[in-house]
Order: sequence, then C-alpha cells, then structure tokens
Amino acid sequence: MLRTSFLRSSHALRRTRALSTVASKDQVGVIGLGQMGGRMADNLRKHGHKLVVCDPVPANVQKQVDQGGAVAAATPAEVAEQCDTIVTMLPSTAIVESVYLGDGGVHEALRSEHLLLDSSTIDPIFTKKLSTELHARGATFVDAPVSGGVAGAQNGTLTFMVGGEPDEFERVKPLLKAMGKNLVYCGGSSTGQVAKLCNNLALAIQMASVAEAMNLGTTLGIDPKILKNIMDTSTSSCWSTLVNHPYPGMMENVPSSNNYEGGFAVALHRKDLGLAMDCAKQAEVSIPLTCQVHQIYNMMVSSGHGKKDFSYLLPYLKNGK
Amino acid sequence: MLRTSFLRSSHALRRTRALSTVASKDQVGVIGLGQMGGRMADNLRKHGHKLVVCDPVPANVQKQVDQGGAVAAATPAEVAEQCDTIVTMLPSTAIVESVYLGDGGVHEALRSEHLLLDSSTIDPIFTKKLSTELHARGATFVDAPVSGGVAGAQNGTLTFMVGGEPDEFERVKPLLKAMGKNLVYCGGSSTGQVAKLCNNLALAIQMASVAEAMNLGTTLGIDPKILKNIMDTSTSSCWSTLVNHPYPGMMENVPSSNNYEGGFAVALHRKDLGLAMDCAKQAEVSIPLTCQVHQIYNMMVSSGHGKKDFSYLLPYLKNGK
Amino acid sequence: MLRTSFLRSSHALRRTRALSTVASKDQVGVIGLGQMGGRMADNLRKHGHKLVVCDPVPANVQKQVDQGGAVAAATPAEVAEQCDTIVTMLPSTAIVESVYLGDGGVHEALRSEHLLLDSSTIDPIFTKKLSTELHARGATFVDAPVSGGVAGAQNGTLTFMVGGEPDEFERVKPLLKAMGKNLVYCGGSSTGQVAKLCNNLALAIQMASVAEAMNLGTTLGIDPKILKNIMDTSTSSCWSTLVNHPYPGMMENVPSSNNYEGGFAVALHRKDLGLAMDCAKQAEVSIPLTCQVHQIYNMMVSSGHGKKDFSYLLPYLKNGK
Amino acid sequence: MLRTSFLRSSHALRRTRALSTVASKDQVGVIGLGQMGGRMADNLRKHGHKLVVCDPVPANVQKQVDQGGAVAAATPAEVAEQCDTIVTMLPSTAIVESVYLGDGGVHEALRSEHLLLDSSTIDPIFTKKLSTELHARGATFVDAPVSGGVAGAQNGTLTFMVGGEPDEFERVKPLLKAMGKNLVYCGGSSTGQVAKLCNNLALAIQMASVAEAMNLGTTLGIDPKILKNIMDTSTSSCWSTLVNHPYPGMMENVPSSNNYEGGFAVALHRKDLGLAMDCAKQAEVSIPLTCQVHQIYNMMVSSGHGKKDFSYLLPYLKNGK
Repeated sequence: MLRTSFLRSSHALRRTRALSTVASKDQVGVIGLGQMGGRMADNLRKHGHKLVVCDPVPANVQKQVDQGGAVAAATPAEVAEQCDTIVTMLPSTAIVESVYLGDGGVHEALRSEHLLLDSSTIDPIFTKKLSTELHARGATFVDAPVSGGVAGAQNGTLTFMVGGEPDEFERVKPLLKAMGKNLVYCGGSSTGQVAKLCNNLALAIQMASVAEAMNLGTTLGIDPKILKNIMDTSTSSCWSTLVNHPYPGMMENVPSSNNYEGGFAVALHRKDLGLAMDCAKQAEVSIPLTCQVHQIYNMMVSSGHGKKDFSYLLPYLKNGK
Repeated sequence: MLRTSFLRSSHALRRTRALSTVASKDQVGVIGLGQMGGRMADNLRKHGHKLVVCDPVPANVQKQVDQGGAVAAATPAEVAEQCDTIVTMLPSTAIVESVYLGDGGVHEALRSEHLLLDSSTIDPIFTKKLSTELHARGATFVDAPVSGGVAGAQNGTLTFMVGGEPDEFERVKPLLKAMGKNLVYCGGSSTGQVAKLCNNLALAIQMASVAEAMNLGTTLGIDPKILKNIMDTSTSSCWSTLVNHPYPGMMENVPSSNNYEGGFAVALHRKDLGLAMDCAKQAEVSIPLTCQVHQIYNMMVSSGHGKKDFSYLLPYLKNGK
Repeated sequence: MLRTSFLRSSHALRRTRALSTVASKDQVGVIGLGQMGGRMADNLRKHGHKLVVCDPVPANVQKQVDQGGAVAAATPAEVAEQCDTIVTMLPSTAIVESVYLGDGGVHEALRSEHLLLDSSTIDPIFTKKLSTELHARGATFVDAPVSGGVAGAQNGTLTFMVGGEPDEFERVKPLLKAMGKNLVYCGGSSTGQVAKLCNNLALAIQMASVAEAMNLGTTLGIDPKILKNIMDTSTSSCWSTLVNHPYPGMMENVPSSNNYEGGFAVALHRKDLGLAMDCAKQAEVSIPLTCQVHQIYNMMVSSGHGKKDFSYLLPYLKNGK
Repeated sequence: MLRTSFLRSSHALRRTRALSTVASKDQVGVIGLGQMGGRMADNLRKHGHKLVVCDPVPANVQKQVDQGGAVAAATPAEVAEQCDTIVTMLPSTAIVESVYLGDGGVHEALRSEHLLLDSSTIDPIFTKKLSTELHARGATFVDAPVSGGVAGAQNGTLTFMVGGEPDEFERVKPLLKAMGKNLVYCGGSSTGQVAKLCNNLALAIQMASVAEAMNLGTTLGIDPKILKNIMDTSTSSCWSTLVNHPYPGMMENVPSSNNYEGGFAVALHRKDLGLAMDCAKQAEVSIPLTCQVHQIYNMMVSSGHGKKDFSYLLPYLKNGK
C-alpha cells in the first residue's frame, strides 16, 4: 500500500535512457519484464512493434535493449510519455497501483490517446476502481489476464480473458493476437480478472476432488486406471481427470508422470486463490472450499512443494507432507 | 449394529406366504422394495422373471404380489430357500448386514448355487468382508450399486458399477441388463461400491466448486452466461458446469431452473459422503473437502433443504440459509 | 460388524482355565487387558479384588495370572458365569459389541445380578442401545469412559465420566474409586461417553486455536511469552494455553517442551474425533471444525506424527509436515 | 487503496473551523468519532483535555463541538498542525492509510514532537510499515487497539494492547488511562495489533468448539448444565464456557440468554478474522480453522445474523440458518 516498491528500484536506470516525447503509432510500452512479461515483449517485437520498456531489474531491461533494440524508460510515466499503447504485466495489486498511480506512475503522463492493457492477475475490485479513474481522465483501459503459463507466453499461445467495453475489446485484439491465441471477451471492466479468478478457484477445488477420490479409491483397492476411466465418463468428469490427472502413470506428458514438475506451480495457484479470497471478503461472498484449498496450498509451500504442479495435492494428501 | 431392524418388522408377513423349497431357474428373489428396489423388481418382472420378494413394509410386498404375482417371503432366509438368484436393494450397511447375516438372514439358507447381487450403496469395507464370508461358503456375490436415481430405476436405464470376479460379472450381466443400461466393471469384490463413492464425493466437491465460482463471479459483476461459457471451455470444465449447472436460468431441464426440484437430493448425496467418510476413516485416508461438503450438506438438511437437488449448494452458500 | 475379532483370538486360552460357576462377592471380571485395562486390573487387585480375566493376547492374560493370581477365562461368557461385577476396557465399538453380544459374549451368561461397567471409549449411540438391551434382561450397566491416560491408569488417578441411573452410579462408586480419583456423574445411560467425546472434540479444536494464534503471532513478531501471557488472561484463555501450551519453551513439563513426547497422542485423539463424527452423522449434527481437525490429525498420522502429543498441531501447521 | 474516502467526505467542514497553528500541551487531536472514537473523545474531555476533532460525518463533529467545546478540523493535517498528541480510531486499514499518508493527511504536518496513537484494529503488517515511515521522520507512533466494545469505550474501561518501544509505552500511559482500565504492553511496533488479532481468532475458534460440543452433546441426550459443568472443570475449559456460554439459559447476563443480543457482533468479529487472514496470507502462515470460522461468519451475515453476538454460532450450526 505504500506505493514505492516498483519505482524505487527502477531509479538505477534513469540516466541510461534517451527521452523521446513523440509517441509513434507502432510503438508499444511494456512495463514488467519478468518470466511472463519478457516473453510477451519478445512476441510483440516479432510482430514488428518497437518497444519502450521499464522494469526494476536492470538485466531484464538490458536484455530487451540488447536483443530487440528496445528503448529503456526509467519510470512508467516516461513509458507513458513515449507510447500511446502500454502493456503491463506485474506480480501484485500493490505494484500495479504503484505503476499506474504512484510517484512516477503512468497517471503523471496520462492522456486520452492512451490504450492501457493490464495482463497482471490482480484483485478485480481494485481493477474496477483503477479503470474508473483512468476512464474518468479519458484514457482507455482493459484488463486482460492470461492463462497458459510461461510456455504460452513464449510460444504466443496465451489465452487472454478481457474485461472492457466491446469497442475497447476490438481495439486491443490486434495487440493481443501478437501475444496469444485465444481471446475471450468477458464483459465490462474487471470481468477479465473475475473470470480468471473464478476459473482458477474452481480448478483448484476440482483437482482436490480428484485427488481425494483417487487416494481413497486406490487405498480401498480399485485399480487407478479403472477409476480414472469411470470418472472420465461419469458425473465427476472434469479437466483434472481428463487432461491433467494427478495420479502418476495414468497419462503421458502430464506433471504427475514427471515427478510433478512443470505445469501450474502450487505457489502461483495459491496467489490466485488468495486474490479470490480478498475480493470474496470485500464482496461478502462465502467460498469455504476455496479457503480450505488455499490453506492446504499454504501448507504444501511450507513443506517445500511450492514449485510442484498443483496436482501434487494427491501425494500431499496421501503422505501428509 | 444390533441386527434386528429388518427382520422384526417383516414378521407381520410371516403367515401370508406359501413356502416352496425348490428354486426355479428364472425365479429371482428381491429383498428391499423401496423407491428403487420396487421399480427394479417391476423391470425384472417385465423381463419374464418370477419374483420372490421380502420387505419390512407390508404395502410394498402386497403391491408386488397383487400387480405381478410375486410370492411373498417372510424372511431373507426364505427368499434364499426359494431362489438361486437374489437381488438386494437396501438403505444402509446395518440392514444389509442384517439381511445377509442376521437371524432369518440369507446365510441360514446359503448354498453354493446362490448368485447374490447387492445393489445397495453401502460401506465398501463391509462389502469386502461380506463377500469374503459368502464366497468362503461357496456362493457367488457381487456388489453392483447404481446411479441414475428413481427415474433410472423406473425406465430401466440405471448404470451398474460392478465389483466381483470377471466370470461373476459375466454371470450377472443378463440380470443387470433387465434393470439397467450401462454396466461398468470395476474390478474385484467391493470395487463397485468404491467406484460409486469416489465418483459421488468428487461430484459433490465439483458442484461446490462451480457454486463458489458462480457466486463470486456474478457478485463481482460478470454475466453468469459468460462465466458459464468460459468455464465450460476451460480448465474448470466439469459435468456440473456442462450438464447440471447450479445457476438458475443457464440451462433448461435442470433442477436449478426448476426451483432445484428433482435431481439428486442433498440428503441422499449426504449419505454417500458419509459412507466415504466412514471408509476413509477406517483406511486412514484424508478427504478434507469431502468432509467439508458433508458438513455443508448437513447444515442444508437442518435448514430444510434436504430434498432439493445438490446444486442447491449455490443458493445456500449465497444466502447462508 | 462381523462379530468375531475378539473371540477368535481368545480361543487359544480355552484349555488353560479352570471353570468356576459360583460368583464370589469380591470377585471382579476384567475383559480387556491392554495398556489401560491391564493397569486398571492391577489397581483392582491392590484393593483386594480377586480377578477373572479375559483378553485375546495370551501374554496379557498370563501376566495377570502370574503376578496377581487371576483366573483366566476363555470367553467373556465364562467371565460372566464367574463374576457378578465385570469391567470392560476395549479398543472399539465393534469389539465391545462382540464381547457383550457376540458368540461367547457376556449375554450368553447374563443374569440380573450382573453389574457391568464399560470403560471403553466408544460410540455413545451404540452404548445406549447396548444398555437398553442389557437392562431389558435385568442387568445393571453403566458407561464409564476415562481420562487420564496410561499414567492415570497406573497411578489410580483416572477420571471416570459415568452414565447410568443415579442408584447405579452409587453402586459403582466403590469399584471406580479403586481405579480412579475423580468420578463425574453425567446423567442417564451413554452420557458418560457423550461427555468424554464432547470434551475431547472441544479440546482438539481449542488446541488448534492456540496453535494458529501462536504461529501467526510469532511469525508477525510478537514475543511468544508475551502472547501466551495475554491469551492466558483474556478471552482466548483455555486449558491449552494455561496448562498444555503447544509452543516450545513456554512451560516446563509439558510435551511441547519435551519434543512433543508423552501426553495425549494424536492417533488416540483422532479416534475420539472419529467417534464424535460417527455419532454426529447419525444424529445429523454439524461439527465442521471437529471434522477439519480430524482431517489434520489424519495427515499428521500419515506423515509419521501419530505418537506425538496433540499439541504437535503447532509445528505441523507451521511446517506443513 | 485509492486514498480518498476519508478526506473527500470531510471537505464539507472546511470552512466552519478557525485555524490555530499553536499546539497546546493538553490539547489532543481525535480523528474518527464513530461509535468507539466518539465515546473515547468524551472520556478525554472528562479528563481535562481540549480536543481538536475530525470526522467525515458532520454530525459526529458537531456533537463534540457543541457538547465539549471541541475545535473542528477539516483534515487530519489540520489536526496535526494544532496538536502534538493525536488519537486515531478508524474502521479500516485503507482509511488509516488515508488519514496518515493521503492528501490532507497527518504526514503533511508531521513534526518530531508528534505523539501519534492508533487505536483502530487494522492489518499489523501495514501498521509496521506506517510506524517505520513515521519514526523515520522523527515522530512517535504506537498502535493501541482495544477490546471492551462500545460499553468499555463509554465507561472508560477499555483494554489497550500497545505496540511500541518501552519508553513510548510510558509516554502514552496517561492518555490511555483516561480512556481505559487495562494497559497491556505487547512489545515493539505493531504487536498491539498482532495480539488483538491472535486473541480474537483463537476466541472465535474456541466459541465454535463449545458450540459444536454443546450441540452434539445435548442432541445425544446429555443435560446442557451437566455438560457445561464438566467442560468448565476439564481440559476443554475456556472463556467461552466459563464466561460467555453460547447455550441459552446456562448463565445470566450473557447474550445467549438474551436472544444473542449485545456482546461482540458477528460482523465485527468477522472483520478481525479477515484481518488475520490478510496478514497470515502475507506471512504465509496456515490458519485453516480461522478461515473456516470466517466463512461460517460470512454465511451468518448473509442469513441476517451479523448483529448477533458471535455465540450465535451455536444456533446457526444447529439450524443451518
């Protein structure tokens, strides 16, 4: 809440850039060059965009400058000065707030030409407030969180869940197509965030449902393949049985058959459940199973399994560690 | 555990029957003529079987005698005397124990010709012990719990989940075909019960996952149809989103669009979760989400919603009552 | 439920005993000579009682014969033949059922002179049924489960929670005084069991409450001794803060200061919560937190901490293993 | 997070006050004049303090002006100009942030003479950050959340849990004595908040433990008074059994004997559990039972019981509504 973290660390880069105040049409700003944002920037370059980039980690910025001829900006405000179109991909609600509204934030250079696109996964209630504030000043803002992970970012096959007015969705389509494959329109502002959180909380609970069923069933003596087949074709059929089964050896090329490596890390999934809990609290909505899985994820991280695929729920429930 | 309930109440019928000790080939015994068993008996008759029936409720027995020419037996033992093939459809583990092993139970007339088929949904650990005991005495026994509800029993479209040796499965197929449509072989003894419980616990949790997601999402402003569409096609896709969606007005002909009437009653689903908890306890398996949904079902029953479809989870979580 | 386990294993002793059918006044039968029952028998002998004993483990029986001159009985029925007063101390509801009502059970020699006293911790709903059945045949039966553990059994300082008619309570007092210190009258039949389970479920939840508060507080930087002092004197004061604090180093002579050894083992406490869940299910009562702690205990046992004191909840929640 | 709510609504008062920039020794600023803050201000006046007050609700301010001769300030900054000593009593973390760090906030007039005292119940992690920031600028800041409710505020019998340096604690003692009775020193900055949250989360869970035990026990037939007496004197003894028992008719003058009116409202307790969940999430601490009670409170609020005493957990679990 103290709006400082993003900016303070980006000061180091201040003197290295050359300021340009004329925004070019195909110039795109990218703020946040981590695992996801860096790869998304790469794809934007491949589609012909010139980039102005900003990130608190100098190496992340330097890589874009060296490999892609990107221009480094010291602050989000400087990105906003140079670009009409900006993509943000940031790790937390607080940092998104800092980047848009803090000292040196986008708001300091905001103008009605701005098309702002936030692909971070954050609290949708904040997204709504932010959107209202930016729209009040004439800018366009859409939320477009992604699914598909680092591989999707690298290969340009991300799914974007987009919240904004229908015409805003039309306007951002070309840009999103450069970074992803599936564009899902979710409704007005913040509904992209809402859709992502709701999907992910249901996913976590469903994986737990399969983990419990498989643990219990196989302990009681049913063959895991038979139980999987039954569940696949009955009323407990779901993506976690059909596509990412948590029991080892049921399917090839899924994390459970590869020591639970790869996939959707417990610690990342935990973050999404935490956001869902935040906005459920504000909206006074009861999500008891989400809370319970969040707590189990917490314990899984404590016991050292934070980087495993979330299908590690199965062995964790089995072994209690 | 005091093996009395089934027999004591069936004494009233003792004097009305005519005892026959010669078992006919197409004669089938049916013990338990409730909502499910009565309709299954009707279908057996339609397929040409002569029935010998037993039930503690005189009216249930009389109906089979009057409408179908069934022979009334006073005790399970008398059914066993007259029939080589017996189907049991009973409401609890304790009553199954009483019918097979209690005073006047099947075991008193047990012989190696017996083909015994239990379609009750009960504790699989007991089923395993019962099966071992009956097999030790030369009889054949399979567990074959059903899904499909009263409508499936009436229309002969039940799904049977069958646990037993492969040759036993072959032997019971014709009989099951008279009462159902899908026969699922689940493995050795008790795996039919295991499969049913595992499917049903996962189903309950998955419905809760959809309820939480839809409650949260729509409260935060996303259109329910859009959220349903997204979930249908993403990683939270499951039967409870695709086929029996809990949000009113999303689909036709589902309970949520009919005031949550029809479908799979909360009180019945609670029973299955209770059985899962029983055997999880004995097998020392952790099923925290199953327990949590069981408790929510408990509260739903307390507040008067026991007869609603289990998709009533959505309004219950929303309204807290 | 198949009433066999107790009897089958005690057959081995059948030929070693000398049958006496005259019951002496100060002769007491003890059925169940495990960790608890053996020590309770020792105390009965010290108070001048001659014992007739029965247990499926020959060594347990032999010890009483060798050290105390006890008479070995092959079955509970033979104990009942020889003794008017019988104490049972058994590990499960099913075994209590077997001992009283199974083949070779007490019921085979039951007479109106019998004063039967069950100190096992079992399902109170079964206790009620058993009591009704035994009383119908003229015998006296009280439930008198204990707290105080092995040390209490050894030192004769157990607390007995007694369910039965007031005059029955008066009759069993002298016997209980030989084995324990505190006698708590709980009301009619089965209320001793009810009281024990209710106390123990509340205890488990309260320990978890202290574990959560201490984990969170100390992680956020408060000194554990200060937090303990505040809780001791405020609205979260409870036995688990005042007497058996789960944070290491707060108190001397508690399990948490001794590597969580001694005390009330997780696996034993889990059993009591399981019984509470059983009867809550039958009585349709919602106990969501009890279920949750039961599941956590389950996971603690799976991860190898079943023998630790239940205050191990604190490090388990902290470390997730 | 958008720091606006407090200030925007207080603008209305801007023109009514007379600015004085000389801080008097016995002059105290009070920011936040709601149910709690208004009564605390009354007690400060009774102890001879002249007040400078600020609140977004004009009537709250006017009451202090009319009844006590308080000076109205338009913004927290203006309070800070006029007073060296300031007490804040505010409803949320976001509003505390706004009052101290927002536009027109205390920080605009901050000087090293300032002794700032926050009695709000808020996120301790934010408190720590705020304290660090204010101390860095030379001011003194302690957190001192209260227990005792509106009655305690009115009667000057509040308990203050104080976090700060030992010498800071000494400096605020006289002021706190004017408003409360018990002063509990909890350690360094933010530990007052930590202590309050930890006590309150344990309290909620313990009340639930008593509710579950009493519901189960009485349904199984034990007399509620007997069960209360047993729990009072055994290992499940706690404040919620001894002082604020949730079963009606056990004690006089407790909410459960008065239709669950008065006491600690579910909605307020829910807020504290929500804060505990927020900081547990940030600190990656697992508090599964706290989360579960928070969700039950959520459902209780949804079903219309938010104003009941939190001992309403008992009838809510019983009736499922």
